[in-house]
Amino acid sequence: MGPLFTLTTDFGSASGYPAQLKGVLLSAVPEARIVDVTHDVPAYDLTVGALLVEAALPWFPRETIHLVVVDPGVGTARRGLVVTDVEGRRLLGPDNGVLTAALGRGARVRALAEHGVLPPPRSTTFHGRDLFAPAAAYLARGGTAAALGPEVSDPVLLDWPAAVREGDEVRGVTLAADPFGNLATSIRAADLVGAAVVEVDVAGQQARFVRTYGEAARGELVALVGSAGRVEVAVREGSAARSLGGGRGLSVRLVLGRAPVA
Amino acid sequence: MGPLFTLTTDFGSASGYPAQLKGVLLSAVPEARIVDVTHDVPAYDLTVGALLVEAALPWFPRETIHLVVVDPGVGTARRGLVVTDVEGRRLLGPDNGVLTAALGRGARVRALAEHGVLPPPRSTTFHGRDLFAPAAAYLARGGTAAALGPEVSDPVLLDWPAAVREGDEVRGVTLAADPFGNLATSIRAADLVGAAVVEVDVAGQQARFVRTYGEAARGELVALVGSAGRVEVAVREGSAARSLGGGRGLSVRLVLGRAPVA
Amino acid sequence: MGPLFTLTTDFGSASGYPAQLKGVLLSAVPEARIVDVTHDVPAYDLTVGALLVEAALPWFPRETIHLVVVDPGVGTARRGLVVTDVEGRRLLGPDNGVLTAALGRGARVRALAEHGVLPPPRSTTFHGRDLFAPAAAYLARGGTAAALGPEVSDPVLLDWPAAVREGDEVRGVTLAADPFGNLATSIRAADLVGAAVVEVDVAGQQARFVRTYGEAARGELVALVGSAGRVEVAVREGSAARSLGGGRGLSVRLVLGRAPVA
Repeated sequence: MGPLFTLTTDFGSASGYPAQLKGVLLSAVPEARIVDVTHDVPAYDLTVGALLVEAALPWFPRETIHLVVVDPGVGTARRGLVVTDVEGRRLLGPDNGVLTAALGRGARVRALAEHGVLPPPRSTTFHGRDLFAPAAAYLARGGTAAALGPEVSDPVLLDWPAAVREGDEVRGVTLAADPFGNLATSIRAADLVGAAVVEVDVAGQQARFVRTYGEAARGELVALVGSAGRVEVAVREGSAARSLGGGRGLSVRLVLGRAPVA
Repeated sequence: MGPLFTLTTDFGSASGYPAQLKGVLLSAVPEARIVDVTHDVPAYDLTVGALLVEAALPWFPRETIHLVVVDPGVGTARRGLVVTDVEGRRLLGPDNGVLTAALGRGARVRALAEHGVLPPPRSTTFHGRDLFAPAAAYLARGGTAAALGPEVSDPVLLDWPAAVREGDEVRGVTLAADPFGNLATSIRAADLVGAAVVEVDVAGQQARFVRTYGEAARGELVALVGSAGRVEVAVREGSAARSLGGGRGLSVRLVLGRAPVA
Repeated sequence: MGPLFTLTTDFGSASGYPAQLKGVLLSAVPEARIVDVTHDVPAYDLTVGALLVEAALPWFPRETIHLVVVDPGVGTARRGLVVTDVEGRRLLGPDNGVLTAALGRGARVRALAEHGVLPPPRSTTFHGRDLFAPAAAYLARGGTAAALGPEVSDPVLLDWPAAVREGDEVRGVTLAADPFGNLATSIRAADLVGAAVVEVDVAGQQARFVRTYGEAARGELVALVGSAGRVEVAVREGSAARSLGGGRGLSVRLVLGRAPVA
């Protein structure tokens, strides 16, 4: 099997830019397998890009190379990164926080050198095609991350607020809406372990905590642990983002009770 | 060649969910070939999903495995199905009618067993990734449909109204709009065999029956046999759905005459 | 490696039509590798389709076969073309100008014969699936362009206005917006060689000429040489198309000065 790549960008699926990037990959690595995570990250939205990467990583083989190009600073002095995370996965993308999900303790981070093993980028506006894709192809063909540039210790991280637990309450915020209008929050499944959620409040509105969308009534506001391991706020067969009038920064409060005996 | 899969879902191409499902397939079947039918079925729209599957099936090799995940009832007691149709194709999806196109006479239908050869789904909200993709991978690696669960005889079918022929009239309804605004109807090419259509009425408006879009004047309302074998209502370089103010349930009446001598 | 195909169409990524075309390719050429340039060319927009093809071609291996199906005249007498350009690339699509980028001096152009090596199309409405895909598969399996039809000398070309240089001014027009709202223009990088741009005027508004998006202030109107080798008009983290109230046909005027000493 050829090397496996994923692509997460805000290029737009109508733009033709993802195809140019793929042309570069396939020219260098004809046997490449390429999976689009999406090219429809809202333009320049680092939070949505980072959440999509977080959600995708666990489902791909470890040898996968992930390209993440949401890059409002293309052509400026912002660095390009190659990250090897604690699971051994490799990610490439700009140093602007979009790789946050892989930048936990133990990750090795390198900045792509300007005068290194790769030719200089052919444009100043499209580093996805002209810098990150060639770097990914270099790795896929057996090149080492070390050859791409020196280790750095200060990658940019998104300011993802951790959930706060006080007594029987867990407080967080909504981070972003998915295309269904479901709102991912800063509260993770791990924040709830061993407890049952007995009350939910989102931006001042009561919601019911359920195990699955199917338990909700049509149009009901609910919260649940979503498929990416974060608490989500949702409206069944509707849009929580629309119902609540927003996607990011809404306060979320869970009240915990004792977990039911299994 | 590796096994061939198609995916038809309402996950949204911006959501990242299709990629997670593909990660599961590629982890289990690295040589998989995967074709997206679409991930932009309107949310929960079983009719559109079922029509897309109907239109796609004839063009793929018979050994293709088709995953169809439009699943408003995920996490409830609705069954998951594996269907082998009369042509030998295999389809997987929820038991809610979205597989109707393959459920004709002679199809073998099985319900995925809860405690069978597959591990229990890892989420209650994303059975496309956690149930149907593993089941598809199981089949692709040589597993049998019989091992996935017992045969059932009562799969849910969509209520697709058959066209009604009375004298020289054929009556039907529009079923759904495609992204061009062309309206698929419940009238099939087979309902017209041996006759010429001399008059068309859609929701009270006259339309002209043509052989191809190119025969229509710009902006003209026409009906024709579409590429999926159903009568379609269209406006050339325009949108019939917009012109007629609707997509589903508009009455369609064709008056037949004698077929021209070939 | 199997043959590589690209697809550029206005079928719509929600329509299911691209998948049917891929089913035909994969039935005939199971080892095919297929890259979507996009299926979201605005309906019938030949200019956008042709620009996307122009931008994609340089990044793919020469042996790639490019299918381009923006085809408002499907089912009429318009010809189908197979083009071999000066670089040896092969393209297939309707004879309506959408292949203009490959139709420069030296290209060999053939019209698909109606009664030739391919079976007659199975529909009059979907030649992407029923004519161009079989023709592409024929080429991929070793068939020759010559066998598909006779050479023709009068392919339809888009009326792409060349930039006009008068004294120290270069004048052109905007051609189309990409999904970011960046406007491609009729002025090419080659029109500026050896000069520095000291003044830019777009539809009566001043813009600054920059090397990269990152040099622009948020919301600033700028012009730059885009990644496809054309001068583009852009608003950083905004949409030039929206700011200027249009996408096509806006006048663009550049004033050239002496290039800075390198």
